[in-house]
Amino acid sequence: MSDAPSPAPTIAAPILRRADANGIATLTLDDPSSRNALSERMLASLSDTLAAIAADRSIRAVVLTAVGPCFSSGHHLKEMSARRADPDRGRAYFADILGRCSAMMQQIVALPQPVIAAVQGLATAAGCQLVATCDLAVASSEARFCTPGVHIGLFCSTPMVALSRNLSRKHAMEMLLLGDAIPADEAFRMGLVNRVVPAGTELAEATALAARIAAKSTLTVKVGKRAFSEQLEMGLSDAYAHASAVMVENMLARDAEEGIAATLEKRQPRWEDR
Amino acid sequence: MSDAPSPAPTIAAPILRRADANGIATLTLDDPSSRNALSERMLASLSDTLAAIAADRSIRAVVLTAVGPCFSSGHHLKEMSARRADPDRGRAYFADILGRCSAMMQQIVALPQPVIAAVQGLATAAGCQLVATCDLAVASSEARFCTPGVHIGLFCSTPMVALSRNLSRKHAMEMLLLGDAIPADEAFRMGLVNRVVPAGTELAEATALAARIAAKSTLTVKVGKRAFSEQLEMGLSDAYAHASAVMVENMLARDAEEGIAATLEKRQPRWEDR
Amino acid sequence: MSDAPSPAPTIAAPILRRADANGIATLTLDDPSSRNALSERMLASLSDTLAAIAADRSIRAVVLTAVGPCFSSGHHLKEMSARRADPDRGRAYFADILGRCSAMMQQIVALPQPVIAAVQGLATAAGCQLVATCDLAVASSEARFCTPGVHIGLFCSTPMVALSRNLSRKHAMEMLLLGDAIPADEAFRMGLVNRVVPAGTELAEATALAARIAAKSTLTVKVGKRAFSEQLEMGLSDAYAHASAVMVENMLARDAEEGIAATLEKRQPRWEDR
Repeated sequence: MSDAPSPAPTIAAPILRRADANGIATLTLDDPSSRNALSERMLASLSDTLAAIAADRSIRAVVLTAVGPCFSSGHHLKEMSARRADPDRGRAYFADILGRCSAMMQQIVALPQPVIAAVQGLATAAGCQLVATCDLAVASSEARFCTPGVHIGLFCSTPMVALSRNLSRKHAMEMLLLGDAIPADEAFRMGLVNRVVPAGTELAEATALAARIAAKSTLTVKVGKRAFSEQLEMGLSDAYAHASAVMVENMLARDAEEGIAATLEKRQPRWEDR
Repeated sequence: MSDAPSPAPTIAAPILRRADANGIATLTLDDPSSRNALSERMLASLSDTLAAIAADRSIRAVVLTAVGPCFSSGHHLKEMSARRADPDRGRAYFADILGRCSAMMQQIVALPQPVIAAVQGLATAAGCQLVATCDLAVASSEARFCTPGVHIGLFCSTPMVALSRNLSRKHAMEMLLLGDAIPADEAFRMGLVNRVVPAGTELAEATALAARIAAKSTLTVKVGKRAFSEQLEMGLSDAYAHASAVMVENMLARDAEEGIAATLEKRQPRWEDR
Repeated sequence: MSDAPSPAPTIAAPILRRADANGIATLTLDDPSSRNALSERMLASLSDTLAAIAADRSIRAVVLTAVGPCFSSGHHLKEMSARRADPDRGRAYFADILGRCSAMMQQIVALPQPVIAAVQGLATAAGCQLVATCDLAVASSEARFCTPGVHIGLFCSTPMVALSRNLSRKHAMEMLLLGDAIPADEAFRMGLVNRVVPAGTELAEATALAARIAAKSTLTVKVGKRAFSEQLEMGLSDAYAHASAVMVENMLARDAEEGIAATLEKRQPRWEDR
């Protein structure tokens, strides 16, 4: 906007940065002063960016990471508390912000591209929900995970939706009722993260996984990710009927024809969009 | 019933003891001669006691433990077998006792207060179901867990309901089909218990966890526990809508206002009922 | 068919072998030249054999194993690809073969007898699905598990149905999106297999487990296995109602009466069909 040199960040400095390379969009939560809270502005940035990525055929995988000691602190409590001054004591605002946060989480589930969290620090409350919601997660050995709403009188009820679909019941309840910060190796044991790597290497590891996914057929990954969450909500028989129908279409698509031919001919496949 | 001195337990000696302290009700299965079987009388005692606790605003957490080498041996086989002499060969009785047992288990799920099992010995059949049903479980290193109905021609079908909602499918099937007593560390690996502690310290550890929960806002814990089981039975989108609605009400309650204010002001919160 | 001595396998040599002993049917995938692919012929053999076993009251447990370095390579890609020459590019054929494969998997779930996989080598794609579908699984320490469809443009969507009902979400997604071959101890950690044993002993171990199950009451095992998958698709309250009804009938059956009497009398039970 200005051609004057300015070393300091302006008011419009993005709190969510996107950098694309090799078919991978790396999203970085960059609002350390709020501990990367899911503020109105952060939620809008995430939602807009995810919508753009959903429509961007050049992106084949997403990495979600953050700056500072905290991955994300969840909802912005100060911003929310200020709305207690509203005539309805904040009811409409709270419903709106929680609805927007839940919608953003479901955008990740519905995103055609897999999303891999690279967790460098504390992921707490809706920040922990964000990790649970991603398709895969790589944790720094110094990362920690927490649903501490119980400490402040506000149970982590929406984070619980993602958590209880990732962890066993006793583990989810333990995190929710005690609110303790769980170290990375416990999170690994409980199945909340796929990898624990030396601190400082989590982004490289997540990017390496993303690169492997980005090397695959875009259509195939999209079809499979969508069917994953769809069939999980069905009974076994319906799930098989649905997955079979999905697989027939997948089989008839050009990339499966090419991929299977390449395998039988012992050569590398060439995907449609590359 | 009698004013004569009697050092021996009378017929009315409770087989379920309740002791309240610091907002924690500790329930002790105390019928070691039946290996703490879920007899008619034990089921009635548990059901009545849970109903009383549900309505008791002074109780904020429950610990469930037992006396003797067995935590609970499950259904009282001798008592049940006696009803084979009924004109209907026991059908009505069996349906009634299984219905009462399932209802008691669901009372634990529906109880506003979290329930923490402190398992000192063998938890078998419906006794293992009881552990699976509790919100959290602490096991003595000498505790063991078992669903051995298959050995006696009576598959642990009702225990399976709780077990298969806590363990992965292969683990649940292993316990149900083989009927082996699983040591505490295996139960920990499978996610059936949250902690394994040195034998003799399980009650202290469970009580310490209960004390931490009892220090929280009663309303918040109640709201969160209820939403946990409700949302688990919904699809993702409905679960988010429900959890968001729950969280809006939670946010508008006095304890969340106080808890968040205390956090922002870096002081201890004072909960409504304390 | 011929009385001439012939050391070489004929065209009619079965690719699925069945051997019965002590109430256990051991099925061996024996088509190493196709890496035990789930070809049309193999699917038909499995389906026919499972149907025969379902009706065979002499069989009380099933072991499923394989010959060669591969447990099963899943769908027969060459056979499927040949049907791209069909007027509809194979659509009807693909729908039919996937439907038949899904039906065979559900035959295993619906089979009265428990099925134990003895995995000696690589279980990949629908071969991995087969392991996930079995009630129990024993892995050789050299076994590996893989859903690699993503590499060839054909996402493992039907294997995903079984996989995502056995593993936690992050683990299932990791296998599906990366397509890596998971070693046996990782599969154990993720809950995909019940035991990892030294290579070469997996069949003996699976057979030992089968023998333990075969020693139980056939009716009881059948009733329990069926109720397991039925109640898993219900909400908690319905699941308890169903499991209670199942258990009342089980209690009234002769084997429960005998089994409980034997326990109370401290003797071995004698099951109805033995």
